[in-house]
Amino acid sequence: MSEVAGPMAIQQGAKYLEMAQGGHGVLLGGVPGVDPATVVIIGGGGVGINAAKLACGLGAKVYILDIDLNRLRYLSDVMPGHCFTLMSSPAAIRDVLPKADVVVGGVLVPGSKTPTLVTREMLKTMKKGSVLVDVSIDQGGCFETSRETTHADPTYTVDGIVHYAVSNMPGALPRTSTLALNNATLPYAVEIANKGWKKVMQENPEIRRGANVVSGHVTYKGVADAFGFEHVNIDKLIFRKTD
Amino acid sequence: MSEVAGPMAIQQGAKYLEMAQGGHGVLLGGVPGVDPATVVIIGGGGVGINAAKLACGLGAKVYILDIDLNRLRYLSDVMPGHCFTLMSSPAAIRDVLPKADVVVGGVLVPGSKTPTLVTREMLKTMKKGSVLVDVSIDQGGCFETSRETTHADPTYTVDGIVHYAVSNMPGALPRTSTLALNNATLPYAVEIANKGWKKVMQENPEIRRGANVVSGHVTYKGVADAFGFEHVNIDKLIFRKTD
Amino acid sequence: MSEVAGPMAIQQGAKYLEMAQGGHGVLLGGVPGVDPATVVIIGGGGVGINAAKLACGLGAKVYILDIDLNRLRYLSDVMPGHCFTLMSSPAAIRDVLPKADVVVGGVLVPGSKTPTLVTREMLKTMKKGSVLVDVSIDQGGCFETSRETTHADPTYTVDGIVHYAVSNMPGALPRTSTLALNNATLPYAVEIANKGWKKVMQENPEIRRGANVVSGHVTYKGVADAFGFEHVNIDKLIFRKTD
Amino acid sequence: MSEVAGPMAIQQGAKYLEMAQGGHGVLLGGVPGVDPATVVIIGGGGVGINAAKLACGLGAKVYILDIDLNRLRYLSDVMPGHCFTLMSSPAAIRDVLPKADVVVGGVLVPGSKTPTLVTREMLKTMKKGSVLVDVSIDQGGCFETSRETTHADPTYTVDGIVHYAVSNMPGALPRTSTLALNNATLPYAVEIANKGWKKVMQENPEIRRGANVVSGHVTYKGVADAFGFEHVNIDKLIFRKTD
Amino acid sequence: MSEVAGPMAIQQGAKYLEMAQGGHGVLLGGVPGVDPATVVIIGGGGVGINAAKLACGLGAKVYILDIDLNRLRYLSDVMPGHCFTLMSSPAAIRDVLPKADVVVGGVLVPGSKTPTLVTREMLKTMKKGSVLVDVSIDQGGCFETSRETTHADPTYTVDGIVHYAVSNMPGALPRTSTLALNNATLPYAVEIANKGWKKVMQENPEIRRGANVVSGHVTYKGVADAFGFEHVNIDKLIFRKTD
Amino acid sequence: MSEVAGPMAIQQGAKYLEMAQGGHGVLLGGVPGVDPATVVIIGGGGVGINAAKLACGLGAKVYILDIDLNRLRYLSDVMPGHCFTLMSSPAAIRDVLPKADVVVGGVLVPGSKTPTLVTREMLKTMKKGSVLVDVSIDQGGCFETSRETTHADPTYTVDGIVHYAVSNMPGALPRTSTLALNNATLPYAVEIANKGWKKVMQENPEIRRGANVVSGHVTYKGVADAFGFEHVNIDKLIFRKTD
Repeated sequence: MSEVAGPMAIQQGAKYLEMAQGGHGVLLGGVPGVDPATVVIIGGGGVGINAAKLACGLGAKVYILDIDLNRLRYLSDVMPGHCFTLMSSPAAIRDVLPKADVVVGGVLVPGSKTPTLVTREMLKTMKKGSVLVDVSIDQGGCFETSRETTHADPTYTVDGIVHYAVSNMPGALPRTSTLALNNATLPYAVEIANKGWKKVMQENPEIRRGANVVSGHVTYKGVADAFGFEHVNIDKLIFRKTD
Repeated sequence: MSEVAGPMAIQQGAKYLEMAQGGHGVLLGGVPGVDPATVVIIGGGGVGINAAKLACGLGAKVYILDIDLNRLRYLSDVMPGHCFTLMSSPAAIRDVLPKADVVVGGVLVPGSKTPTLVTREMLKTMKKGSVLVDVSIDQGGCFETSRETTHADPTYTVDGIVHYAVSNMPGALPRTSTLALNNATLPYAVEIANKGWKKVMQENPEIRRGANVVSGHVTYKGVADAFGFEHVNIDKLIFRKTD
Repeated sequence: MSEVAGPMAIQQGAKYLEMAQGGHGVLLGGVPGVDPATVVIIGGGGVGINAAKLACGLGAKVYILDIDLNRLRYLSDVMPGHCFTLMSSPAAIRDVLPKADVVVGGVLVPGSKTPTLVTREMLKTMKKGSVLVDVSIDQGGCFETSRETTHADPTYTVDGIVHYAVSNMPGALPRTSTLALNNATLPYAVEIANKGWKKVMQENPEIRRGANVVSGHVTYKGVADAFGFEHVNIDKLIFRKTD
Repeated sequence: MSEVAGPMAIQQGAKYLEMAQGGHGVLLGGVPGVDPATVVIIGGGGVGINAAKLACGLGAKVYILDIDLNRLRYLSDVMPGHCFTLMSSPAAIRDVLPKADVVVGGVLVPGSKTPTLVTREMLKTMKKGSVLVDVSIDQGGCFETSRETTHADPTYTVDGIVHYAVSNMPGALPRTSTLALNNATLPYAVEIANKGWKKVMQENPEIRRGANVVSGHVTYKGVADAFGFEHVNIDKLIFRKTD
Repeated sequence: MSEVAGPMAIQQGAKYLEMAQGGHGVLLGGVPGVDPATVVIIGGGGVGINAAKLACGLGAKVYILDIDLNRLRYLSDVMPGHCFTLMSSPAAIRDVLPKADVVVGGVLVPGSKTPTLVTREMLKTMKKGSVLVDVSIDQGGCFETSRETTHADPTYTVDGIVHYAVSNMPGALPRTSTLALNNATLPYAVEIANKGWKKVMQENPEIRRGANVVSGHVTYKGVADAFGFEHVNIDKLIFRKTD
Repeated sequence: MSEVAGPMAIQQGAKYLEMAQGGHGVLLGGVPGVDPATVVIIGGGGVGINAAKLACGLGAKVYILDIDLNRLRYLSDVMPGHCFTLMSSPAAIRDVLPKADVVVGGVLVPGSKTPTLVTREMLKTMKKGSVLVDVSIDQGGCFETSRETTHADPTYTVDGIVHYAVSNMPGALPRTSTLALNNATLPYAVEIANKGWKKVMQENPEIRRGANVVSGHVTYKGVADAFGFEHVNIDKLIFRKTD
């Protein structure tokens, strides 16, 4: 769903910059003669690239941070000139936050709790009325001050910074989201329906790797670690003798 | 202010497409594998071009209509490939409305009431849950079903179509708007301050043309016609013998 | 040769849209004030991306369909904004055909007969005078109504739809095609010339996989299946004891 | 109609580069690893810019020549990087012709015979099998070797160079052409219908300038000069006392 | 010559950022993962737009300042997304200087001494090792600390800031400069040669306006004011009775 | 460091084209109405793509040559239209050199001496005053006439062609280079610091492959071959029994 969540994060950021919404009243893209706003996107994966495309489309200055140099090279090949790539590090984040009008947290560690990338202390260096959007809230969030919100009451303010941390962002745009999700999952669903779950898991390593729980055992290491369960290798459960 | 109102019209359109806001739940820009939404912009002037840049930036399919062929040529020179220019006419508007997810009315006839370009009857051909944004509401609006709204209660629905018609849209983004307005008006303000109003009007025809009321007389023809007042030629008031 | 066939497919489509050629008289790219034509490209591989680049270059609205979501993501990274990516499915093809002025069939299943993607029944939903170009005709074609044609007599019409299905399209542009083919094949030719066929096949799995017939046995599964021959594993033929 | 003729000129050039059509078998846009063809466009007005957009879209190297430096500046602002602007002169044309695969003559001197820009002698410096497209053939053509052709028999060859000089090029794409023509002329037609021809000519100098013959007198200087008629100032005919 | 001087200013700025040249050792365009340098261009005319194109091409963040809002609108239409337009004012210049790695002074007031836009005091807010390039040095320069230099010894340092102020910059690239100058001036030269100077001045107001000295009288007001000479209206000198 | 060396190669090429520096006085990017210069980049890897981006940014005509067709395809996907990709071969290099104003040698064979790609004889076909920049000089250079130079005395001339072959080009821009190098190497440094060199070499094959000398033995084949030392397989040294 990251392809929907990324653009939505920017749209929400733009919206909560409106003064009536708590923001400091800045247009993301500026206008001729007025300097545009600055968007900082932490994480250059699926969420990040799609957020960056939209933010660039709006005309903002966009910084995208990632720790994978090859990903940064690819981003600098395909993104327009106002998408500036930065090697991510605590120092780099600290440097860029004071410029930001919108910060998008788009770091996802598959199946694990997201690391904390922006601490409460760092908030103090930011402009009052700027907006944080935490796309990784489903897995714990990447801002220290993030706590899950809902579409009905999506934001709260900490130290003058607006926080948006709705846990199911794409739910607001169900038509697009459903199509996107179908596109990504239908091939797997068809294969599972045709073969039954166990056969699919035996034959298709991609689906096997996606299993979280099999016969009551947690087979996904990230999930087991995050919740303190015992991790069982899925191979022991699906390749047993009786098969 | 059109440079702020144009982009804002698209941001509002994007927001009210969210299902919780009354829209039909579509992301303007689509995602890989999903067809993007369609934006129709009526009027290719200052509001229109800035709205179109933003809508293109978001990744939508964008139609921009104008009656000035030279303006359409310029737009097709400088806009990206997914900004499709159309010669405006009642027939062209009728043709394109059924495709639209967001329609922006950006036609301004200086000092006059805006013509009605989208009738109530045409609404019936549109998709339920699509959004109309009337930027020309300050001068009467260009949709038959437009009525002025406020930032506190910005939308209403007619025949399943969401209407957004806040009369002072840029007011929501006061920082950017103030800078933009200053850039456009400061040179005039300085000149007026230095010379006094009457001298400026005598010397600078651009400012003279901008006068609405002088010594209690309506000197702007469009305003006089719209409100039923007598129109007095400003020259008679400022170039009198005693000067 | 797909890099030549892709652009040529669009050039042929543009040509047969001329009314004297049987088409409905539309310019692919439109002009300022006139809506451009729509090109649908089925298959986002080598043929598809090169066809899409050209169609976008001409200014058309371009839909490109593929079943590989990662390919669609890459296409949406590198193609301009008027190249709309769609997840391919029978439903998606059915939806997009009525809009099309030119349809390019660019699906190639290596060594196998191409699946039928557009049925005769679907033709009825298309505009009279639109053009189908079947690049996969060499391997059976991907339109039900395709039958192989020649450069001397390249088109025929079914149900009002112009069909172009020349089996050796790049043959019309021999200079570019020869260079392109050389670039792609010379490294293999040099290696084969230096080592002899059997040694190359033993050492270079890429060339080994390309073998169609060895010592009278069909070693390419797709070919064997398509023509009803027995398939023999090439390893048995080239790694025999006597070597 | 220049907005249709420009792109069509490139499409025809691409087509007649096919070997079966007499050309030397080169793809305009090249493919990865193969140098693209070169297009030379003489005249940077309406025909030229639209031809250049299309040729750039196809991926060719494009030279556009004009004698108006401000027009070249504008072209270099809005065209992509592979559209190279050149100040036109006999020397510049002579320099660039040997590189050309397609040459488009798009110089129009309103109401006058076009000057000869490419002489027969210059043809000898060009590559055999390259293509000349003369868009200004309606007004005499800008290549010495141009003679008018028809859609039925559109080309002939001089000194190994294919010539395309159909006098009504847009006639091949009537749908697009009709719309484009309507967009450009409808406003005048409406005004003429509403006011009658004489009143319109008195009131609208733009229409007055367009008149060719009034009451049997040739009122357009270029036409009078070209055909050896007497030129009568239109003012004498429409502003007579009796009006 | 501004079309040569603009790009050259950026090339010189890039060169003097090298540490061995006195600069602070920064690459204008950055690399993937490293933030690019910032270029500030004061003046959005011929020098400015050409400097900005090059600086954007190098991948820098580019700010261009001008006092003409319509020019800024045009720049924002045709320049890429990392060219940020700012309404020029002393405050705006003061704000943006501390970010700058290279500053280009490209303000030309025809025939008059350039105003001082960057004072010595402002230099103190700039980064040590950044570079000022004063393209307007021929007419006095727009930095308080500018003094004319030569290609042989092009730079000097004030308060840690490298100054480049060669008065005939295009002289370093004579081939391109000569062609550019010819393109701009040849039409005038031909006309002068054909008609003689006096006739040309009588007939062509553009050339008349360009005259600096006629029969020993200074006829160009800006020049007369700058050097303290009496200004004589050229009309009195060339339209005398005896003509 | 190739991401710094690539752009620098172009900046140096632009600088040494200045006539005072020995070049023939051409601006890389041309100006409106003047044909731009031509840059030839041999090698489409890290150096090449970054050099090409900059050269395109400057507005030059850019040819990039590589022997990997897939790399050329990627380059043609992401680079602008004036970056022309060519399949590299001795014939292709010979063809393109006479057009070149700047040639960048960016071929690196990891750990081996670079092959000679431009011979002294080929220099004679080039324009006097054009510039060769050899980025691969650290590993022997790819022009026959290359010999290592320094930032203090960076160029020399052979047969009228300026040669720039500074062996540590990025050293001139230490700020950017240090950041770029850190980004690329810090992850390895951290891992080495945490685990100690031997453990890292045992666990991380990427670092293991980077080792040049272990316990006095040359473990990098390219280095051993180039300098005539015996090559010892690193596995024998780090996976010994005693571990």
